[in-house]
Amino acid sequence: MTEAKRVAILGSTGSIGTQTLEVIRQHPSDFIVEVLTAQNNCDLLIAQALEFNPNAVVIGNISNYEKVKDALISHEIKVFAGQKALEQIVEMETIDVVLTALVGYSGLLPTLAAIRAGKQIALANKETLVVAGELVTALAKEKGVNIYPVDSEHSAIFQCLVGEFHNPIEKIILTASGGPFRGKDKTFLETVTKAQALKHPNWEMGAKITIDSASLMNKGLEVIEAKWLFGLKTEQIDVIVHPQSIVHSLVQFEDGSLKAQLGLPDMRIPIQFALSYPYRLKSDFERFDFINYPNLTFEQPDKKTFRNLQLAFDALERGGNAACVLNASNEIVVDAFLKDQIGFLQMSDLIEETMANIEFISSPSIDDYVATDEKARKYTEELIKRNT
Amino acid sequence: MTEAKRVAILGSTGSIGTQTLEVIRQHPSDFIVEVLTAQNNCDLLIAQALEFNPNAVVIGNISNYEKVKDALISHEIKVFAGQKALEQIVEMETIDVVLTALVGYSGLLPTLAAIRAGKQIALANKETLVVAGELVTALAKEKGVNIYPVDSEHSAIFQCLVGEFHNPIEKIILTASGGPFRGKDKTFLETVTKAQALKHPNWEMGAKITIDSASLMNKGLEVIEAKWLFGLKTEQIDVIVHPQSIVHSLVQFEDGSLKAQLGLPDMRIPIQFALSYPYRLKSDFERFDFINYPNLTFEQPDKKTFRNLQLAFDALERGGNAACVLNASNEIVVDAFLKDQIGFLQMSDLIEETMANIEFISSPSIDDYVATDEKARKYTEELIKRNT
Repeated sequence: MTEAKRVAILGSTGSIGTQTLEVIRQHPSDFIVEVLTAQNNCDLLIAQALEFNPNAVVIGNISNYEKVKDALISHEIKVFAGQKALEQIVEMETIDVVLTALVGYSGLLPTLAAIRAGKQIALANKETLVVAGELVTALAKEKGVNIYPVDSEHSAIFQCLVGEFHNPIEKIILTASGGPFRGKDKTFLETVTKAQALKHPNWEMGAKITIDSASLMNKGLEVIEAKWLFGLKTEQIDVIVHPQSIVHSLVQFEDGSLKAQLGLPDMRIPIQFALSYPYRLKSDFERFDFINYPNLTFEQPDKKTFRNLQLAFDALERGGNAACVLNASNEIVVDAFLKDQIGFLQMSDLIEETMANIEFISSPSIDDYVATDEKARKYTEELIKRNT
Repeated sequence: MTEAKRVAILGSTGSIGTQTLEVIRQHPSDFIVEVLTAQNNCDLLIAQALEFNPNAVVIGNISNYEKVKDALISHEIKVFAGQKALEQIVEMETIDVVLTALVGYSGLLPTLAAIRAGKQIALANKETLVVAGELVTALAKEKGVNIYPVDSEHSAIFQCLVGEFHNPIEKIILTASGGPFRGKDKTFLETVTKAQALKHPNWEMGAKITIDSASLMNKGLEVIEAKWLFGLKTEQIDVIVHPQSIVHSLVQFEDGSLKAQLGLPDMRIPIQFALSYPYRLKSDFERFDFINYPNLTFEQPDKKTFRNLQLAFDALERGGNAACVLNASNEIVVDAFLKDQIGFLQMSDLIEETMANIEFISSPSIDDYVATDEKARKYTEELIKRNT
């Protein structure tokens, strides 16, 4: 790379955040850590700040402010706290790129603030585009901001599009591992526990996304994310189950040629490329070898058993605030499932019922999204309370 | 595309030539046929000339000159004959790109002439690079000529490199179907007939390349071609057998990410891309669907049984005129095999013996290549005569 990039990492203590810092640790002359933020994990945030010496840190949970401040007081690292600070810190002049690795809906407002401030975005928080893709991509276009995907599937597509942005996409094929319950039927799924759902066959990730992977909601959210990232129509997006998670996704062009990006399941590759684009930096990540993967298999997703994927396609087709409802309701049901309040299959039922009952808005403003999100959460919470 | 490209097709009546004309037929506003050439098939050459109305045609076999001339006399199409005419016609000012689809060594001198005249090259004649890759690529660089690969494997790699020419290649993986005799042992191969060898499982091609595919020499030649096209060291080139011929080859970058190009086995895609680059033109070629290919399999090539592949790696490692010897000897043995003069396994034996006995030249001139080619052919011919 020609010049070091100055990076703000929103959500630096999570799975993506810590892997981002691993990448930066291996390329000290290519990246400078400007900002680190965490919601609750102040011990790790402090350790990261001491190692990477950022300009500033933000702790989301205000009750941890004093602890972080005391730990960093002698290191000339500014310390802020609270959600508003998150939205303000991204405007800092010295930031080149904001990597948003916040969990769920909470990523929306800080990401919008970063785009508004003209910062390039490395997007690991797919919910930002799921909830308000139309608005976010329009704003990014207006501000001349590029959104570099960090999700492995979208990074795969982006890598295949490099040098071909002038060539129309015929369709994309998002691969899905199928999760731990691939091939299972509804009878089986009725009884699965959160411990089973948390065992992903290929990827080690946070709890929310792991449950979303088991329910195929993650793939549904990715379908919606892809629509906005790459400007596609619903019928241009296919999903194929590929249990080995080696082919990370494919693009088909108008001449019939397909391109795919492949590799071992390792989030550090897409994270690094989102930060280093258009350059690729030398890495010592373990290499893929066909000797260990002599068979790559592909099958149709079972949208009847794993209804979340169909619900996501429905929300996408409907447009407006439908995907916002889907996402909000999903965040509530996943939380309830993780608390053993509801069963695995109930998640889809509750999301569907919520989608059917929240007022449809065809061209929502940002306030409409915020209100829709709140209403959908409350509605699903009520349904859960009635159920238990 | 912005402006129509004016194309010369050397070898327009062969498999690649006719498919090139199919592509051009579907995109009449993107391509203009300037020159067509054939060695012997004057009936098809005449029919092509009448359909595409080129500026000139060349018939290689001089005894067919009058027939072609008489057929085209009233159409203002210039008619030339003989090998020298082939080398001269490519200098024609109105040509933008020369697609070289001549068979074997015969492609070398016309391709060199085209490069010398500053024409862009769409290269279907891999032997040009096998025989004299160092010289050809140096001349292309000097003349500012791009060589666009037509071979499906090299096109795959080229497609993956689009937009990434600034990023170093860590390695490439050339896929091989394995041919009709994949998994067979030497005992079996001793008795195979040319009819068996001519039945390729996935691709319909000319006789020479089909035999080369059965013997893995085609992959060996492709390894050497890839070295020169992409500036690689021997150890940066891997070969993997992939019987379905869907993944056409892969590139691994220094960050560990792999990109692959995929599709049904259809030469029209690489032909079209070599001519339309950097644009992709809409096509109605049949599309790939994972439903029909739920399993993509990969295995190590058997270099002990199919020794040609190892011989090619040896020639590449040796450098100088070694690959020229390999190629010349191979053309002779394939011809002898097709005439039932020698058995399948004898081909490798004779090539190896020839390679061991032709004088090594470390930095050959073009005259050295011509002399080496002649000597190697004679040497192998003598061996065959002694054998039969």
